[in-house]
Amino acid sequence: MTHGHAVTAGAIAAALDEVREARPRVHCITNTVAQTFSANTLLALGAVPSMTLAADEIGDFVARADGLLVNLGTFDALRAEAVDAAMPAAKERALSWCLDPAHAESSPRRIALARRLIDLGPAVLRCNADEFRTLFEAEPGPDTVARAALRHGIVVALTGARDILSDGDRTVFLDNGHPLQARVTAAGCAASAVVAAFLAVIGDPLIATAAGLSAVGVAAEIAGETAAGPASLQVGFLDTLYGLDAATLQARLTLCPADVPAGL
Amino acid sequence: MTHGHAVTAGAIAAALDEVREARPRVHCITNTVAQTFSANTLLALGAVPSMTLAADEIGDFVARADGLLVNLGTFDALRAEAVDAAMPAAKERALSWCLDPAHAESSPRRIALARRLIDLGPAVLRCNADEFRTLFEAEPGPDTVARAALRHGIVVALTGARDILSDGDRTVFLDNGHPLQARVTAAGCAASAVVAAFLAVIGDPLIATAAGLSAVGVAAEIAGETAAGPASLQVGFLDTLYGLDAATLQARLTLCPADVPAGL
Amino acid sequence: MTHGHAVTAGAIAAALDEVREARPRVHCITNTVAQTFSANTLLALGAVPSMTLAADEIGDFVARADGLLVNLGTFDALRAEAVDAAMPAAKERALSWCLDPAHAESSPRRIALARRLIDLGPAVLRCNADEFRTLFEAEPGPDTVARAALRHGIVVALTGARDILSDGDRTVFLDNGHPLQARVTAAGCAASAVVAAFLAVIGDPLIATAAGLSAVGVAAEIAGETAAGPASLQVGFLDTLYGLDAATLQARLTLCPADVPAGL
Repeated sequence: MTHGHAVTAGAIAAALDEVREARPRVHCITNTVAQTFSANTLLALGAVPSMTLAADEIGDFVARADGLLVNLGTFDALRAEAVDAAMPAAKERALSWCLDPAHAESSPRRIALARRLIDLGPAVLRCNADEFRTLFEAEPGPDTVARAALRHGIVVALTGARDILSDGDRTVFLDNGHPLQARVTAAGCAASAVVAAFLAVIGDPLIATAAGLSAVGVAAEIAGETAAGPASLQVGFLDTLYGLDAATLQARLTLCPADVPAGL
Repeated sequence: MTHGHAVTAGAIAAALDEVREARPRVHCITNTVAQTFSANTLLALGAVPSMTLAADEIGDFVARADGLLVNLGTFDALRAEAVDAAMPAAKERALSWCLDPAHAESSPRRIALARRLIDLGPAVLRCNADEFRTLFEAEPGPDTVARAALRHGIVVALTGARDILSDGDRTVFLDNGHPLQARVTAAGCAASAVVAAFLAVIGDPLIATAAGLSAVGVAAEIAGETAAGPASLQVGFLDTLYGLDAATLQARLTLCPADVPAGL
Repeated sequence: MTHGHAVTAGAIAAALDEVREARPRVHCITNTVAQTFSANTLLALGAVPSMTLAADEIGDFVARADGLLVNLGTFDALRAEAVDAAMPAAKERALSWCLDPAHAESSPRRIALARRLIDLGPAVLRCNADEFRTLFEAEPGPDTVARAALRHGIVVALTGARDILSDGDRTVFLDNGHPLQARVTAAGCAASAVVAAFLAVIGDPLIATAAGLSAVGVAAEIAGETAAGPASLQVGFLDTLYGLDAATLQARLTLCPADVPAGL
């Protein structure tokens, strides 16, 4: 593993400006519950979403995309074929893609599928605590996240009240966000789509992931200051993400390095 | 039919607290238009939704669920297989499930499907007037609703400006709600999902149904006081449902028993 | 091509009242991302949406519908079969339908599909600039739009900052709308659904199209005056469309005839 640059607030703020400038096309293989909110989240950020799944044309869409998300929620035959049809185009374009193993804990078939996809080499795996426990058979913490990242050669981003992000070499905590996000369906799925947008533009996948998750967390946090409940939080989140500037992101960011013993 | 307890405002208010406490997992086989709003409604209530349909894993999801909804809107081959694959797990767990025969009036195939599902023994059938007319070949009213409930050994809940709920023995009217709900797509489908959440926790299916529909109706009514149209009604509904407490539900409840002749 | 009446503000305003009065049923074959928002848009307008796709019952739904939308976003086998199964019922009812070739520029397969559907004779094709370029191999402008309309015997409606509408004989510009609409997913798809609702009621397809697109544009424009971003724009759009009256539509309308050389 090559050592990357430090994950600084400045690098994260700059990444937001770069994504806004680049307007990346992000193709999303995602679940039926998450499609609309994920598309609106990407549009609010300034990215350009597409969502088609049919095996006979997804390759054409991925061939025009800058980024790719694979999310396992409501996984069905259509989505299974979509993944198989999308991967050659993604490989040809050397896309850095994001894997969201949504609900991997809920069925043995989905665990197997998530493991197979990890082996295909996503740049980032974004998961929650239940999914992490299932996939890596370990309690979530900075050490286990770093170990999972190192073992698979990917960034692992575990989100919750405190996010833990690691590429095996660098491990950081992110504390932005709002508790009401847990009451908005597909909030995690939309966060993964945002990570996919940052991966499309930012070369360092850990910085891309930290920037994507902190943009989402800060927008939710600001929206939460005036929200009356989960639906006004969701409306305020999209409005805030649309208007979020790099200076506000940097000022609000609560990032700190995690001490992880060397030589995992 | 065993005689249940009276459907009182106190029992309904207590049911809301019990559902909030229990946080039931509710698996939803529902239509593509309703999935996101139903998930957000369940989350606002405090329940935990899942929505996957693939036949090779829905059984695993239902095996971990406390409640189940089967809604016939946008019914297709995927959903038909999902029902068949879900039923053994639902039966094994003895789940009390809710059937929503959405749009049964629109095609002969859907009528046949709704009838077949009624024979599988849902705890509750929630329908509107058109669906009721089609399924029971009778004009909606307290007598016909009670008769349908008695005949099939289920709770029948007919929703409209005035809801009529019956288990064949007890029949009640509920008048909560707001006219703008009719301009929000899948408002009825989301109400059925809420009924499924209450059925997961509350043993008496008529009380569960009355509690679920009144929580939805009261939240819509409160939201309607400040809504500027159907979209702000929907946002306000979710925010209000999230914050709704048992005392407010009880104070706002407009429940009254319906006189239905004995010996239907 | 028979010459239609002039496209006047009075005719457009009257069309809104007629649609409100008629409450047309509009069946939508549309993409998974657009379904919910399109249904809510039709309900806000006063139309009655249905969205089912299964080949074994879509014919029954279309046989009860007054209008039909075919949108090619997220086109898959289910939707391909739906179109084939819907067309005989649409033909038997002589429905004036609207075609939205969403993302036609993104895959050769979708271009072929869009061309095949144009040959089936929609009343209106609503597209954006990229889709127009792909389908008609010409730069968008009043001349090329009029030529495409004349050649295919349909109304072509090209939407953007300035909409261009033509039936080959009459060509008009519409300037209503708001830039934030471009940040709301499926805003164009929902506009096509509204056009389908107007086609169900208004005999002159160019007036129906102009009325539908201007109702959407004016509602977005009014909502945009107070929106804080794309999500509050979307909420405000639906609320405003629900309450929009003919006088406001007429007063806000920015319609002007386009000079197109005779004898294209």
